[in-house]
Amino acid sequence: MTAERRAKVMQVCERHDVLVVEDNPYGLLRYDGEAQPTLYSQGQGNVIYLGSLSKTLSPGLRIGWALAPSAVRAKLVLAAESAMLSHSTFNQLVVRRYLDTFPWREQIKTFNAMYSERRDAMLSSLSSLMPEGCTWTEPEGGFFVWATLPEGIDAKAMLPRAVTERVAYVPGTGFYADGRGRASMRLSFCYPTPDQIREGVRRLVGAIEGELDLRDTFGSTLSPSAEGSQAPAADLP
Amino acid sequence: MTAERRAKVMQVCERHDVLVVEDNPYGLLRYDGEAQPTLYSQGQGNVIYLGSLSKTLSPGLRIGWALAPSAVRAKLVLAAESAMLSHSTFNQLVVRRYLDTFPWREQIKTFNAMYSERRDAMLSSLSSLMPEGCTWTEPEGGFFVWATLPEGIDAKAMLPRAVTERVAYVPGTGFYADGRGRASMRLSFCYPTPDQIREGVRRLVGAIEGELDLRDTFGSTLSPSAEGSQAPAADLP
Repeated sequence: MTAERRAKVMQVCERHDVLVVEDNPYGLLRYDGEAQPTLYSQGQGNVIYLGSLSKTLSPGLRIGWALAPSAVRAKLVLAAESAMLSHSTFNQLVVRRYLDTFPWREQIKTFNAMYSERRDAMLSSLSSLMPEGCTWTEPEGGFFVWATLPEGIDAKAMLPRAVTERVAYVPGTGFYADGRGRASMRLSFCYPTPDQIREGVRRLVGAIEGELDLRDTFGSTLSPSAEGSQAPAADLP
Repeated sequence: MTAERRAKVMQVCERHDVLVVEDNPYGLLRYDGEAQPTLYSQGQGNVIYLGSLSKTLSPGLRIGWALAPSAVRAKLVLAAESAMLSHSTFNQLVVRRYLDTFPWREQIKTFNAMYSERRDAMLSSLSSLMPEGCTWTEPEGGFFVWATLPEGIDAKAMLPRAVTERVAYVPGTGFYADGRGRASMRLSFCYPTPDQIREGVRRLVGAIEGELDLRDTFGSTLSPSAEGSQAPAADLP
């Protein structure tokens, strides 16, 4: 989200007394452009901010944190105690030692150089190979490209074909509560190497072309109820 | 539970098609008597057995396990994924290495010697100091003595007095869904040293004697609804 949109979102939420959950595990993984202000920094005590070590140290440690208004924080502590008694104090000590003694900001720079190269591999492959009618974001950070398929193609219906080609993505419907996002996909460039990313895009394009053939033979692969419900792709997850 | 009672419980549960959850974090911490068969070993696939490293290695690792009928296991995996995506794989690797390379059975023997001494300190102090009308279990393992107070004394109502004396316990009501257990308390001998245990019992007895004075002056400290609802203490948690 742009700074302008962030400000507007916060204005609307404040006006209607809406509590905002800002889930920001990727905030430090920006390798282009300027950092945007967090919603938390712009809120009036109505933002719960979630951070994580999962993307910058290790997902296997299961360590994150929440900044929350004190009344909410007390409820979160109670809910955590009720759900699991306690987090792993062992892992909290491991993370404290890591942050105290390790040059973790340098480590993040190393990650950002690596992810920047992977993003570039994905974007250049998409530019070279994607069929007409596809669009995608050009992210300045994080792990994902958000791509939108040509009219009449259903990303969820296409997934089995893609998996058969040994490439996978998360269909856009997973990011909406109301059934939108069927034309969209989240593509990850986090774990594979640039060569694997290029091969993955090649396979993905093969799957899309197969669906386009189907569409041109039998009409839309979107179920009727999903027609016209493509998500506005530009600045979504 | 005696072996006979275990068998009867399982018979009743099987007859009425009841799924049993056997939560057994203390099973290895037996320092007297004979090990009893688990309910799991006596069930016909209707027992979910829960184990834990929390009492024999470290609670801070948050590692336990479940043995469950396969249909239940699939649901447990889904519920875990939904609640937290994943357990800590890091901690699972730590535990695997510990179990592979460390003489952990010897470590449990060391613990059992230590807990046996602590239990003995608690039991001998209770025998010396507890007022007439109190009863308590003599456990062959685990961390706890289950004590029952004289008629008319409410363990939950007494807790603030005990905490003021800087001794604490878990009132018996925490172990029942129906309000029973008000005359009972769970006393832990897990963490304190024998000297601290003896001092704790001394303080606890002070609190009980204070409540007995109250009772003898004003009548029962049990709320009317709890009268006569003392738990059968002998073989409960």
